[in-house]
Amino acid sequence: MDLMIPLKQGAGTPLYEQIYEYIKQEIRTGGLRAAVRLPSTRQLAENLKVSRSTTQLAYDQLLAEGYIESRPCRGYFVCEAENLLEISPAQGEKREEEGEAASPKPGGENGPWAVDFLPRGIDLGSFPYGVWRKISRNVMVDGNREMFLSGDSQGERSLREAIRDYLHAARGVSCQADQVVVGAGSEYLLMLLANVLGRDRTVAMESPTYKQAYRVFDGQGVRVLPVEMDGRGMRPDRLEESGADIAYVMPSHQFPTGIVMPVGRRQELLQWAGRKKGRFLIEDDYDSEFRYRGKPVPSLQSMGMADRVIYLGTFSQSVAPAIRISYMVLPRKLVALYRRRAGFYASTVSRIDQAILCEFLTEGHFERHLNRMRAVYRAKHDLLLASLKALDGDFQMSGENAGLHILLTHRSLGERRLSELAAAAGVKVYGLSSYFIGEPEKGEGSRTVILGYASLTEEEIREGAERLTRAWTAVSV
Amino acid sequence: MDLMIPLKQGAGTPLYEQIYEYIKQEIRTGGLRAAVRLPSTRQLAENLKVSRSTTQLAYDQLLAEGYIESRPCRGYFVCEAENLLEISPAQGEKREEEGEAASPKPGGENGPWAVDFLPRGIDLGSFPYGVWRKISRNVMVDGNREMFLSGDSQGERSLREAIRDYLHAARGVSCQADQVVVGAGSEYLLMLLANVLGRDRTVAMESPTYKQAYRVFDGQGVRVLPVEMDGRGMRPDRLEESGADIAYVMPSHQFPTGIVMPVGRRQELLQWAGRKKGRFLIEDDYDSEFRYRGKPVPSLQSMGMADRVIYLGTFSQSVAPAIRISYMVLPRKLVALYRRRAGFYASTVSRIDQAILCEFLTEGHFERHLNRMRAVYRAKHDLLLASLKALDGDFQMSGENAGLHILLTHRSLGERRLSELAAAAGVKVYGLSSYFIGEPEKGEGSRTVILGYASLTEEEIREGAERLTRAWTAVSV
Repeated sequence: MDLMIPLKQGAGTPLYEQIYEYIKQEIRTGGLRAAVRLPSTRQLAENLKVSRSTTQLAYDQLLAEGYIESRPCRGYFVCEAENLLEISPAQGEKREEEGEAASPKPGGENGPWAVDFLPRGIDLGSFPYGVWRKISRNVMVDGNREMFLSGDSQGERSLREAIRDYLHAARGVSCQADQVVVGAGSEYLLMLLANVLGRDRTVAMESPTYKQAYRVFDGQGVRVLPVEMDGRGMRPDRLEESGADIAYVMPSHQFPTGIVMPVGRRQELLQWAGRKKGRFLIEDDYDSEFRYRGKPVPSLQSMGMADRVIYLGTFSQSVAPAIRISYMVLPRKLVALYRRRAGFYASTVSRIDQAILCEFLTEGHFERHLNRMRAVYRAKHDLLLASLKALDGDFQMSGENAGLHILLTHRSLGERRLSELAAAAGVKVYGLSSYFIGEPEKGEGSRTVILGYASLTEEEIREGAERLTRAWTAVSV
Repeated sequence: MDLMIPLKQGAGTPLYEQIYEYIKQEIRTGGLRAAVRLPSTRQLAENLKVSRSTTQLAYDQLLAEGYIESRPCRGYFVCEAENLLEISPAQGEKREEEGEAASPKPGGENGPWAVDFLPRGIDLGSFPYGVWRKISRNVMVDGNREMFLSGDSQGERSLREAIRDYLHAARGVSCQADQVVVGAGSEYLLMLLANVLGRDRTVAMESPTYKQAYRVFDGQGVRVLPVEMDGRGMRPDRLEESGADIAYVMPSHQFPTGIVMPVGRRQELLQWAGRKKGRFLIEDDYDSEFRYRGKPVPSLQSMGMADRVIYLGTFSQSVAPAIRISYMVLPRKLVALYRRRAGFYASTVSRIDQAILCEFLTEGHFERHLNRMRAVYRAKHDLLLASLKALDGDFQMSGENAGLHILLTHRSLGERRLSELAAAAGVKVYGLSSYFIGEPEKGEGSRTVILGYASLTEEEIREGAERLTRAWTAVSV
């Protein structure tokens, strides 16, 4: 069904509220009868030319107030009239709470954004849907029944071999398939790693850093120390002083600062690792596939001290987050430890998904997909930079040589003010301060916001940049 | 290709070695040329009428010695001649180590078993392959692209609602969808639970118990105390004395003892939980779907103190292990704690798999599948019991009213001797002692072996029972 909802842009009433009011009235007056199925939030968003978070917010509100209900696998339906009367405040509260947890946003509050510069998103429109579907069909043919038995706890050997081959060709990573561990997401692998290395370890992390990794270590009871960084990444002298025995870094493109660690600094970190027994570097290479300027820097793992580097990679950024497949490459001497301490954990990735990805890798689809995505992201990247040109005087840009986000630092305004101005213009940007760990006060003076662009269309990038330019130049001091 | 290998049963040379020797000779003499693809271990096992572990063992040996290689997604191929010469002892060793880890067996040593009474297997022949494939195709239609975006960290709401409906109908579990957490396997969920409850907790477990759960708690740094059990399960007086604040139990069918906890004992455990703040029972209902005698006992969670029970269930036993979907139902007051302490972990199950399972549940396929499986397993169960009839005088049988395994206790012989006799007859059985925790000496006097039958064909059950009867009656004292 189609809902033709007349929306007034800039009417003072937020768009989501207009949608919510319209549907509520329709239900109350009988225009929408009980048990009628509503369009999906996605369909409705497309029809009304609004963002999906807007329609989701409207539906969440209707759900919370009991006007509509969600049925398993079926979608949203108008509630029976008697159900409408049964809603107690407690139920309403509960549903609200659920809605909140269902779509957490890194930056905190939810809102009906015209443009959301979400970091670490992906471009889903370019997902090779047809190929993926075709491979799945092939994988699930009769005679392949063993696919449903439990498999290798480390990941299927064929997939690990395919990952080894890819890493060797693309990142110079040198390893055998028995060093590769496949798991459902990098967070899960970091949990395993905490088991393997032991909780009596101290992990050094840059600050700001990838908050999820910090949360995992912290949640696992591992001690985490923030170590000062400069323009080239984690400072080796401070790392040495810290007493940590493990350092977690993202040399290809530090998140969120976007710093690409120069070779010299990498060597210093490797030297640190080599100086004492039991020291390791965790190299999180989460978005190394995307690089726009300069020649690719080899992975830490490939720089001759592979026995000191735990290499972490993911298909969440390069294929799709919902695929839930990441991997780590353990130094040979950690493999036995892994088997003893974490080898009993059955694989968290279904064998079917592993087989699909394996074929995607070995049949050349992944390489083609990456080439296409590099072009897509480069175009978005260039467009964003060009569209923000007018801000050049007031802002300094950084992190723009690789990855899927950039940073803007204002010459005087704080990130809070910048975010508020952006929000008033309907645009969500992400303050740098929320990525600081350990000493949150270090983020207090931040004048930097982060703009991710991977999940936005070119039109949205243009519009977002325009709105930001208007919002931020109007008040510039 | 077909390999016609002449095998001599009972020739003194194990079957796997005969297969290995034959293929090695064929490669050496040029009968099998470089780059020729070998049949899969499964195909070969079927052709030769031997178990798959036999062909796997032969291939592992050939791999380790460099005669064949495994290629990603493609299978096993005969190596190039020059590769044959390059094999260094180190490489051989390494491969052996890998092969060992690739197919771990709960009982320890690997062997070419004629019949393997593996506990916690499933009958894969009955997997509703066609339905599953059809649903996957439907789920992956165009316009469903959002399926590839990251989803709800707790599991998709529609799936959680379907699980809630199933649990309510089948197990009397009373909960809302926001209390359900979906994850890739029970072990992963127990890891999360350790995060949610905190590592300063003490978990009481029966001994013997499900070793994987013990390993997870122990690996997570949670203190585990074995608490004495009697014929009705964990003893509440000993639990009270232990000082533990969490008790992990399997009331429907304790693993491995097979004890079904009577209602009175369940109530005592609930009373224990209610006596002090912060106490919880973890109810692992891993195989509650299968019950052969007596009326179903309601779940602990349904007995009126749901705020003290963490309910754990899985589709590994009831659908297929490789599906990697389990779930837990948290007491309402733990939901907020879960969100704070573990809500940041992205879901470990792909949205596609969640959508497939969701439709499988809501469209009635799961119920039909369970009904069919109950009939299949009951037939196997009855056949096994009937086939073991001759052992009645020397053995006592237990755990036979539910689940997918039984226990046999000899009146005088120890489990070690029983296992050796079985092994000499080509049959693998599992000693009870390896499931003891904390005080392994308690398992020392064990005269009990475990026989799982789910993954065996009726013919294998008959043959296994016959071999065991011959082996064990010949020496009975």
